[in-house]
Amino acid sequence: ALYKGLDSWDEVVGRIRGLHADTLRKLSSKCEDRFMAGQKDHLRFGMDSWSDFRLVTGKPCCEAGDAVYYTASYAKDPATSYAIKICRSKVKGTQQQFFHSLAVRQSLPLHFNIQQDCGHFLADVPGRLLPWEEEEEEEEEEGLKDKESDEAKPTDSKENVKEEEASSSGLSCGSLRSRVVVITREVPFQTVADFVHDGVSRHTLNPELYERQVCLLLLQLCSGLEHMKPFQVTHCDLRLENLLLVHSPPPTGQDPLDSTCPARLIISNFSQAKQKSSLMVDPGTLKDQSRLAPEIITATQYRKCDEFQTGILIYEMLHRPNPFEEHPELKEREYTWADLPPLPVRSLYSQGLQRLARLLLTVNPTERIRMSDARACLQCLLWGPREDLFTALGCSTAGVLSGASHCEATLQNWLDLKRTLMMIKFAERSMDLGCGVGLEDWLCCQYLAFASTESLSRVVHILQQP
Amino acid sequence: ALYKGLDSWDEVVGRIRGLHADTLRKLSSKCEDRFMAGQKDHLRFGMDSWSDFRLVTGKPCCEAGDAVYYTASYAKDPATSYAIKICRSKVKGTQQQFFHSLAVRQSLPLHFNIQQDCGHFLADVPGRLLPWEEEEEEEEEEGLKDKESDEAKPTDSKENVKEEEASSSGLSCGSLRSRVVVITREVPFQTVADFVHDGVSRHTLNPELYERQVCLLLLQLCSGLEHMKPFQVTHCDLRLENLLLVHSPPPTGQDPLDSTCPARLIISNFSQAKQKSSLMVDPGTLKDQSRLAPEIITATQYRKCDEFQTGILIYEMLHRPNPFEEHPELKEREYTWADLPPLPVRSLYSQGLQRLARLLLTVNPTERIRMSDARACLQCLLWGPREDLFTALGCSTAGVLSGASHCEATLQNWLDLKRTLMMIKFAERSMDLGCGVGLEDWLCCQYLAFASTESLSRVVHILQQP
Repeated sequence: ALYKGLDSWDEVVGRIRGLHADTLRKLSSKCEDRFMAGQKDHLRFGMDSWSDFRLVTGKPCCEAGDAVYYTASYAKDPATSYAIKICRSKVKGTQQQFFHSLAVRQSLPLHFNIQQDCGHFLADVPGRLLPWEEEEEEEEEEGLKDKESDEAKPTDSKENVKEEEASSSGLSCGSLRSRVVVITREVPFQTVADFVHDGVSRHTLNPELYERQVCLLLLQLCSGLEHMKPFQVTHCDLRLENLLLVHSPPPTGQDPLDSTCPARLIISNFSQAKQKSSLMVDPGTLKDQSRLAPEIITATQYRKCDEFQTGILIYEMLHRPNPFEEHPELKEREYTWADLPPLPVRSLYSQGLQRLARLLLTVNPTERIRMSDARACLQCLLWGPREDLFTALGCSTAGVLSGASHCEATLQNWLDLKRTLMMIKFAERSMDLGCGVGLEDWLCCQYLAFASTESLSRVVHILQQP
Repeated sequence: ALYKGLDSWDEVVGRIRGLHADTLRKLSSKCEDRFMAGQKDHLRFGMDSWSDFRLVTGKPCCEAGDAVYYTASYAKDPATSYAIKICRSKVKGTQQQFFHSLAVRQSLPLHFNIQQDCGHFLADVPGRLLPWEEEEEEEEEEGLKDKESDEAKPTDSKENVKEEEASSSGLSCGSLRSRVVVITREVPFQTVADFVHDGVSRHTLNPELYERQVCLLLLQLCSGLEHMKPFQVTHCDLRLENLLLVHSPPPTGQDPLDSTCPARLIISNFSQAKQKSSLMVDPGTLKDQSRLAPEIITATQYRKCDEFQTGILIYEMLHRPNPFEEHPELKEREYTWADLPPLPVRSLYSQGLQRLARLLLTVNPTERIRMSDARACLQCLLWGPREDLFTALGCSTAGVLSGASHCEATLQNWLDLKRTLMMIKFAERSMDLGCGVGLEDWLCCQYLAFASTESLSRVVHILQQP
């Protein structure tokens, strides 16, 4: 059947086009299996497993906004690394909020860019693993003697019970404190905040690479957030320090910052997350109004909050302050794109990121770009088609939008060629020793596998808006 | 530059076609690097390395026509396996002939299907490693007491010298005999004679698989012999027991006989090989006239001798006797194809192999098919285009030959589609764990990388001859 119609060139070309698209979809799904290997196994560690975990070092591997992470090994599966996430929250109320956030997260099916919970419980944690608490306690002692310090110490009776249980865990020396502990398979090595902080000089020295890395991280962020949409979950607290970076694939000696795709991005800290059913609950607990979309304040409307916060993150990742922190007066009025501070043009990506930031920060939520379109814009910025292709071909915005057949044919040709090149890349990877296919290959494969002339012309149109 | 002309479909299709062909050529050469890994390093072991070799077991790994092979390890490179080839020849004259054959072989550049010599020398070998000699000696003692038995025992003085040298080699126990020893990197696990012998019931139970394996072995044989043509080397002693099988890639637990490509074929035993410069030398020493092409006897013309012997091998590999052994009278006259015994049709490949055998056994050497065409016929039998494609399309032999544009277009379409499928195969292999690309993938890739509509129509024409 495959060889039927071999005398018709049109049919053969159509067949080859179909094979390429099908194969890229298959490869994309195989990549998912590889990059998420093991993660799809259902793991659920309980308190009873706590004593089987050992810290690999006494130093945290990552200090995030809501927790500190330690690399750990599990006695019953020593080949796999785990991360032990020790939550910073001390107040019992916050712990409750934490369990709420876990519940929200657990309502989401697995996604490559959303933190997976392999078990969580209240555990007794030695004080030395909670270095920030000592700092805070000192601060408290210095300035806030009147605040109740009772919270920091669990009751003695409880501690004794746990101490016995934990005595063989290697996690038991020193004074014990009861904390929410989460086990995850993904061991973060830094947060995006660290990445941005460490990237100041790289941004200056090699803006092309740094801003491409930013695009790849934003793409992962958007695709994680897009995944949450059908479940009506909104994160509501997208900050650099709540986004973790994990080596993927595991480090091979090469500095991840030298490759264009620096790492896998994991969205963490769902403590402020909203699910539609709970949308009306207590918006007053949301702190830091400078990070909230205006419509939250006026209409308790979270639907496009994550889009807005992603817009702010574009500024911050490009080493610019949050425009609404810098100009708090903006939110008081119907600001326009012209009111938003410009991003300096440093690379091929700057203008596209500027455009995207504006689309994400549009004051009216109904006009604000959707997460799926933002994701598509980032794919287009990363892998094309580039604007110059269209201008060179005299393929105007209007033409693209009206679906002029000339432009559509060009887009189809572009897609065919890109798919061929992607196939070649994978084919050549088969001859590489070691794990040849990288995270960026997968992300690009995903794009090309599911793109169509319609989706491409839509994005080209969005990015060409004046 | 890659994106220039994206508005022209024809140009894009041409570009994709070019990319596929280029990539397959690149992949084919990468495969060569992988499958011949290490072999391109120039290794030359001398007598001084002899003591660094250790046999892995005391049992031969393969008993070939001219030698017995033992798996060995080399103290300075314990990770690599080597084969120690101990030549059967005892007579000093034969040893000289052996060194002549080594010289012929060394004039050939490396090829995947030609035995590589990593060093050869006269070494003292314990008698227990020469089991056939004991048998022969017994036979001699029984029947041929009058024949001089002096040859079998090297002089004492010589033996003593070598004994000291070899005393630490693990190869020194028992009585020592001086033999030509060759070190090779390819460790054979059987000869094609063993393969054919063991294959009788497989040929009956699964003729499709067995005969496909035969095609793959013959293809490798032809491509090794084709490689010798520009150097005017003729093997002149192509027999099942001179063709070795080597695991490639190294065994992974799967029985090589279950995969379509059973193993890598290695042409060995160049003791009868002729190089043009020495063509006139002593044809009387060639034994076993039933294996010689008629023109050798009449015109001392070796040019197409290997083609003829390959034809005989087709019969033997399909479990039929050598037609000229069965009917010695054939060579006495100008036999035609009709005089050659028919091969039973057992599979998709039988008829093609029958046709090829006839073409190879053509009485007149100038009409006999060339090795390069025989190789191309085997590729066509293995991977197409199949005859039914052409008959289905009403693409007659005459049409193919006259290069009718309709047929040429069909062949181009077939090639485009096959190349796409091959690319996909490689791309998917990139996601396999372990060594994904197999020997058959490489052989097919070679075919598709270098095929053209001209070469395809030529072969289709040859195979369609009445």
